[in-house]
Amino acid sequence: MGEFDLIRRFFAPLAERRGHPDLLLAIGDDCAIERITPDHDLVFSIDTQVEGVHFPHRYAPRRIAGRALAAATSDLAAMGATPVCFTLALTLPQAEPAWLSDFAKGLAETADRFGLALAGGDTTRGPLSITIQVHGTVARGRALRRSGATPGDIVAVSGTLGDAGAALDYLDVPSPDPLEDALLARYHSPVPRLELGQALAGVASSAIDISDGLASDLGHILEASGVGASVDTGRIPLSDALKQLKGANALQLALHAGDDYELCVTIPGQDWQNLPGFVREQLTAIGRIEEGAGLRLSGVNGCEDDSSRGYDHFGKDL
Amino acid sequence: MGEFDLIRRFFAPLAERRGHPDLLLAIGDDCAIERITPDHDLVFSIDTQVEGVHFPHRYAPRRIAGRALAAATSDLAAMGATPVCFTLALTLPQAEPAWLSDFAKGLAETADRFGLALAGGDTTRGPLSITIQVHGTVARGRALRRSGATPGDIVAVSGTLGDAGAALDYLDVPSPDPLEDALLARYHSPVPRLELGQALAGVASSAIDISDGLASDLGHILEASGVGASVDTGRIPLSDALKQLKGANALQLALHAGDDYELCVTIPGQDWQNLPGFVREQLTAIGRIEEGAGLRLSGVNGCEDDSSRGYDHFGKDL
Repeated sequence: MGEFDLIRRFFAPLAERRGHPDLLLAIGDDCAIERITPDHDLVFSIDTQVEGVHFPHRYAPRRIAGRALAAATSDLAAMGATPVCFTLALTLPQAEPAWLSDFAKGLAETADRFGLALAGGDTTRGPLSITIQVHGTVARGRALRRSGATPGDIVAVSGTLGDAGAALDYLDVPSPDPLEDALLARYHSPVPRLELGQALAGVASSAIDISDGLASDLGHILEASGVGASVDTGRIPLSDALKQLKGANALQLALHAGDDYELCVTIPGQDWQNLPGFVREQLTAIGRIEEGAGLRLSGVNGCEDDSSRGYDHFGKDL
Repeated sequence: MGEFDLIRRFFAPLAERRGHPDLLLAIGDDCAIERITPDHDLVFSIDTQVEGVHFPHRYAPRRIAGRALAAATSDLAAMGATPVCFTLALTLPQAEPAWLSDFAKGLAETADRFGLALAGGDTTRGPLSITIQVHGTVARGRALRRSGATPGDIVAVSGTLGDAGAALDYLDVPSPDPLEDALLARYHSPVPRLELGQALAGVASSAIDISDGLASDLGHILEASGVGASVDTGRIPLSDALKQLKGANALQLALHAGDDYELCVTIPGQDWQNLPGFVREQLTAIGRIEEGAGLRLSGVNGCEDDSSRGYDHFGKDL
């Protein structure tokens, strides 16, 4: 069995196990074929993760696959989209069955969880890196963008921030304690806010997923929308684990560390009052959109900071 | 100016200079947005090219970009599709303005030539590789597949085969002669058969682009269709340059070398007679589809060969 057949043996089941009515033809031809229903738009995003840059050397293959697919899927959540399928361009030094089996397992688990079918792919020999393009659909004209924030809108975030960034300190700890474990879970198994994004499509005035840190990613909304914002840092949601382990540094991690894959959204005041309960439960209001450009941070310690340092890993969406 | 801004400066014009009515939102958001008209299907394919595997070290950036985009676009030709847009995942060791400028120039030229807008991308630091996903559309239900070949169909190929493979011998020649130049042009600037593929959508019973050699790629059609074929090797179209420079080896290159990006198609006999002139001019009939599995080669020198060796670079579509 050649290397090509070996690789295909591990990935073919991902195309077969979960069909999607929109995906008419998956792997095995020159292209995949997708039929978008007339009342929907297609949204898509491509993301690369490189060993030693986006994940550690000797990181478990199952986790490499799961994190890469989750990170890409988070871009669908930020558009309010429903996942359909993905393509995989995998570059790896050699075709090792144990590695491929574990990688395919992580990919299958994550694909099943988010409702994604494997539509196609390409494998090449080289230093380990994973490029994934995800496809989703959203009701025609209702995709969330970065560009619609308007003065007066409430700025809100989902979940808690800073956990995945803090977890970097514990990746090599042999026996992490329960608090460290809580942070590590956020790093190893990010959960894109798909249902939240879908519920906010057509409601939120703008949205972005927080992959590079709140200050940096909210900054992208402000720039795209031509507005500014003030954020009360005392309102930024922090997990108990983060506060207990990182104390005074917790806020900096929440502002500037990446990989949380929560959503940052802006919502007109009147709509905020009318959000369904399950949506409100996932969101914390942290500030307001204003006319003057820039991000103004105020907080419990009189902390003032208008920086927008994010994790700039020379690995950025165009 | 940060590396991120530097890179964006070179690529942003590719999204702006050529809009496409189907592409509602290109770079600068979490996802791109594409609206497919209800009477069309979306087809898409992802391809990676790695330095030292798919193109030589120190290869001109303009050519790297052009070849990568042409190779990906050839998959659209093989489906009978019309190009819409593409995404680019670029991994490079450092952000060097001269390199980026030349690369972006090659990308822009090629994108303009084939009618592709840049929809999105991701840049990461690492060993040089280029992953491109192309999107095209084809009239609903009329995409060409590998799986429809039927006994009695004529097997035909476009253009001449073996030229790009032969060019590998001359890549390092300081002053190639005109014949060598003719072969090098096929390697440096492949031209996907887009118009031919579009004209054959709904007409050809199967199609594939020849990226790994005729024997290997026709083999994919035979496997997907559950049929066999006999091919008269004396009919395989060879360029004068290839025959003069490679003599007795020309046929082997045509059968087993890759990178030509011509089309191999199967066409029912009655339809073959009725092909429009500009389609017939691009095609040469080389054999027939038969019931018995396998590829049977016969030729002027009594050559019999049922091998399907192709260029297996551990770099294969799933």
